[in-house]
Amino acid sequence: MRYKCIVAYDGTNFHGFQVQGELRTVQSEIEAVLLIITKTKTRIHASGRTDTGVHANGQVFHFDTDIIMPPENMQNAINSRLPKDIYIRNSEHVNDDFHSRFSAKSKVYRYLIDLGVYNPLLINYRYYYHYPVNLEQMIIASECLIGEHDFKAFTKNHHLTNSTRTIYSLDIIKSGNLITITFHGDGFMHNMVRIIVAMLLEVARGKITPSDFNNILESKNRKKAPKLAPPNGLYLEKVIY
Amino acid sequence: MRYKCIVAYDGTNFHGFQVQGELRTVQSEIEAVLLIITKTKTRIHASGRTDTGVHANGQVFHFDTDIIMPPENMQNAINSRLPKDIYIRNSEHVNDDFHSRFSAKSKVYRYLIDLGVYNPLLINYRYYYHYPVNLEQMIIASECLIGEHDFKAFTKNHHLTNSTRTIYSLDIIKSGNLITITFHGDGFMHNMVRIIVAMLLEVARGKITPSDFNNILESKNRKKAPKLAPPNGLYLEKVIY
Repeated sequence: MRYKCIVAYDGTNFHGFQVQGELRTVQSEIEAVLLIITKTKTRIHASGRTDTGVHANGQVFHFDTDIIMPPENMQNAINSRLPKDIYIRNSEHVNDDFHSRFSAKSKVYRYLIDLGVYNPLLINYRYYYHYPVNLEQMIIASECLIGEHDFKAFTKNHHLTNSTRTIYSLDIIKSGNLITITFHGDGFMHNMVRIIVAMLLEVARGKITPSDFNNILESKNRKKAPKLAPPNGLYLEKVIY
Repeated sequence: MRYKCIVAYDGTNFHGFQVQGELRTVQSEIEAVLLIITKTKTRIHASGRTDTGVHANGQVFHFDTDIIMPPENMQNAINSRLPKDIYIRNSEHVNDDFHSRFSAKSKVYRYLIDLGVYNPLLINYRYYYHYPVNLEQMIIASECLIGEHDFKAFTKNHHLTNSTRTIYSLDIIKSGNLITITFHGDGFMHNMVRIIVAMLLEVARGKITPSDFNNILESKNRKKAPKLAPPNGLYLEKVIY
């Protein structure tokens, strides 16, 4: 029986999603719970990893087990044993041809930038940015990203054979002191969202122009995009199948 | 020279405000920084303690030092050395007759109750409550608290010679799934806000009536008010002088 789960977590106290030896990760916490419930080592497969400090409102994973029960019962059984910074939002039975990673059609990521006074209660949940921001320039620069492009300049991973991705939409909205950037695309490479955000902020600050930003994209050279926004502003919102 | 500071902190990773041996507390973190800046042991005096897990947006403390500098410089010097979960919002020079605790005229506390779906990203910042809530009954019950009363039934501290306090206002506001209770009073005893919130929720849930709640207040007997709301929903908002 294959179960699909939607999971939310506060990335602050995890060394990312994926198992890494003895370090505390989201995957290792969930698998430790599944070991108790299924009484056998049960591996979970996620839509992708998230880095240390990155949050999720709608990460997706699946796993196979001989234990057959209504999905709500499985969800409750897992949630009752999980630490408080992970929560299964939804669970359902799926066919064997469903795969969290390979069946994913697109993903939505969100990045929060706060231009206001530093608040120690929110520091783990947004990027405090204290330079003047020209939002119009930032939006103009972002427009070149829409559509299918080789995003090699904006990824940490240089071993990928294919760094072409499609960004369906990229919305930059400012409400009070909070800037929310929402990315919807068919896939995002390692650090891609955080590099794009950091370089868009270079435009916002006036360090580079929208045209420079476009040239960086076209250069396909990560050295032209050396910045990386911090992980704590980033949320994996949703995986679409 | 006496400095008055307004400080915000995320109470999650502190064993409360007050120094407790080797445990990580807000006071010990600030005093460790002042030791570096003033090069001598410098004690701070707060408006009052907060318990483990309780947050502050506007706690106040003062300290005396021979180091004379503009208050903004002192603020920056402290902030640049503080861990990210504490932040000095404001600093000013005050006269020697100012005392954070004894000069305080009143305090504002806020308590957040979330009736919505559990969110692991917010668990440290509000109380998730999953029983049906009758807001009207809760508001009716709360009205008996306004004014000067002996709040002995609602405090953990039974050694106080005087448990009479005045609550100037108590506002209960619901917005979406979030209930915000704001207390303004001349002083609050140990656990007083958290016991009142827990007992108001007993009314909201229909376990006791507003009239029972009033009887508990009048009984001056803590045994009649055995509940305690968790610390993570509580914020010290403001100290008024």
